[in-house]
Amino acid sequence: MGDRPTLQDVARAARVSTATVSRVLNTPGQVRVETRARVEAAIARLGYLPHFGGRALALNRTNTVGVVIPTMANAIFARGLQALQETLAEAEINLLIATSGYDVAREAEQIRTLLSRSVDGIVLIGEARPRESYDLLNSHGTPFVILWTWRADSPYICVGFDNRAAARAMAEHVISAGHRRIAMISGLTESNDRAQLRLEGVRDALHLHGLALDGAHLAETPYGLDQGAEAAAHLLMLPQRPTAILCGNDVLAAGAIEGARRAGFVVPADVSIVGFDDVELARVAQPPLTTVHVPHRRMGHEGARVLLEMISDQGPGHSVELETEIVDRASLGRLPQPQSA
Amino acid sequence: MGDRPTLQDVARAARVSTATVSRVLNTPGQVRVETRARVEAAIARLGYLPHFGGRALALNRTNTVGVVIPTMANAIFARGLQALQETLAEAEINLLIATSGYDVAREAEQIRTLLSRSVDGIVLIGEARPRESYDLLNSHGTPFVILWTWRADSPYICVGFDNRAAARAMAEHVISAGHRRIAMISGLTESNDRAQLRLEGVRDALHLHGLALDGAHLAETPYGLDQGAEAAAHLLMLPQRPTAILCGNDVLAAGAIEGARRAGFVVPADVSIVGFDDVELARVAQPPLTTVHVPHRRMGHEGARVLLEMISDQGPGHSVELETEIVDRASLGRLPQPQSA
Repeated sequence: MGDRPTLQDVARAARVSTATVSRVLNTPGQVRVETRARVEAAIARLGYLPHFGGRALALNRTNTVGVVIPTMANAIFARGLQALQETLAEAEINLLIATSGYDVAREAEQIRTLLSRSVDGIVLIGEARPRESYDLLNSHGTPFVILWTWRADSPYICVGFDNRAAARAMAEHVISAGHRRIAMISGLTESNDRAQLRLEGVRDALHLHGLALDGAHLAETPYGLDQGAEAAAHLLMLPQRPTAILCGNDVLAAGAIEGARRAGFVVPADVSIVGFDDVELARVAQPPLTTVHVPHRRMGHEGARVLLEMISDQGPGHSVELETEIVDRASLGRLPQPQSA
Repeated sequence: MGDRPTLQDVARAARVSTATVSRVLNTPGQVRVETRARVEAAIARLGYLPHFGGRALALNRTNTVGVVIPTMANAIFARGLQALQETLAEAEINLLIATSGYDVAREAEQIRTLLSRSVDGIVLIGEARPRESYDLLNSHGTPFVILWTWRADSPYICVGFDNRAAARAMAEHVISAGHRRIAMISGLTESNDRAQLRLEGVRDALHLHGLALDGAHLAETPYGLDQGAEAAAHLLMLPQRPTAILCGNDVLAAGAIEGARRAGFVVPADVSIVGFDDVELARVAQPPLTTVHVPHRRMGHEGARVLLEMISDQGPGHSVELETEIVDRASLGRLPQPQSA
């Protein structure tokens, strides 16, 4: 990629939407004269070539993109999805949405349905799915983009972030605040690579400091407020009580704060609790959550942009790594330096 | 309605999904013998008649339902939508989703797009939209169901709740806790009948008690945490400082708690703040929000059920009123009975 100018390059150069560039190419009579002139100048300047093959293909398009997300029920995917939808709508493409309930068999079924409806492209969350799902996608030749994860050595087009590095950075942050007895409430790791990678990242950081996450200090549970509350209550009853609990996402962390409070612990004086995602819950929780900020809207916009490029140019696409950052709020407390580990 | 047995009646009687009944009718070879026998017995018992017209129409179906919601970005519509999607998926129908950003012109455009894609049915939020949007829907003859509102005299098929009565009940509840100086943070009422009706409900209750909501004590603002926080900070600076603030939804209320706290007020000791919707934020907020519980999942399931019935039987459909209830948490305080109003 990068050599041949794309529809997006033209749109950017002419400061218009890709939909407008499409209209200039296909129905120029519908475009205002000034806009049309600007787009045509950009096309000439960049040497953009809307070859016939591409245009013929365009006629077979359904102008629909399908997305399979694990769930709509908590707000984890909401902002990213909203942004994805907005960028697709600009290109006059509708979004067909389905949920898998974090079940790979159900996801495979949803992918099959979307392909049978001849969607122009597919958006999936994370990389963990059976070989057969990828074979199906490849045999159809339908472009697809994976969101919510990015790994340097992924064979797929991913627009996301390095879950492992982000979780490692958060664990380092907690350790540098003086914590040594650390527990984790993870999402269910089976078939969820984001949950797996976040857990691995925490293990990486602990290992580097001669610490470890033993089985008793790791709770794996579905994402939910009740589940987070129960897991925290359980961890806080252990003889080796943790001084900090890292959570796989903000829903679990907000639940953990509730569980700790009900068990009579003050956050962060008695126990620190940190989250991951930076959704609205993180800000509303009391104390507000120290968490990993994920650029949800940018991920949705960029994901749509990359997929649109693959659809319109039939090119191979390119992955985009987005940065995350730690947002320090109030749920992480500082411990005095320990005498010895 | 109610006389002629529907596909749903058969499904219920045979304890199978409507999709299974469809399969028995269309591709019986794909259904297990016992299940098929049970469905056929139910068909015979109820006298269900899958008339040719219906089956011919079925062949023209796209097995797609479109929904236009105001936004995916905060969690207001998440649980209802998830439930809607689950029930449609059981009938092997996919959901095409679009957002309007609370803009009726954009909604009209989205409805037009959905109709041009020959969706089998449409789900809309609330009744407030231009005459032309309804004309368009009616001229296409595509069944549509309205969620999130229900009024006895609505001319449309609505699966929702009485926003005005629910808000009135909440205002009564606040008044019965001894509050007289009451303010409201409302969502933008233009083109949003839910926001309008909730405001009217509050006015109804105040009026009944010889109270009123003057212009200074009413803030109208887009739904958002920042907007709620700003509005609360403003209301708490008024000379006639309110002792209770009613909010148009939980996002505004959670923001209002934050705004009050930043301005140095303790909730509910200094000011009570109540919400509407009972989304996750309500539970996580500190203090947890006293709010109106809306049966989101039931609304989604029932909405899908009614629409599926309209699609498969080409019948007129029927509205469903759902009950809301006040959930008493901790953000509403009791005032001593006032000496005089």
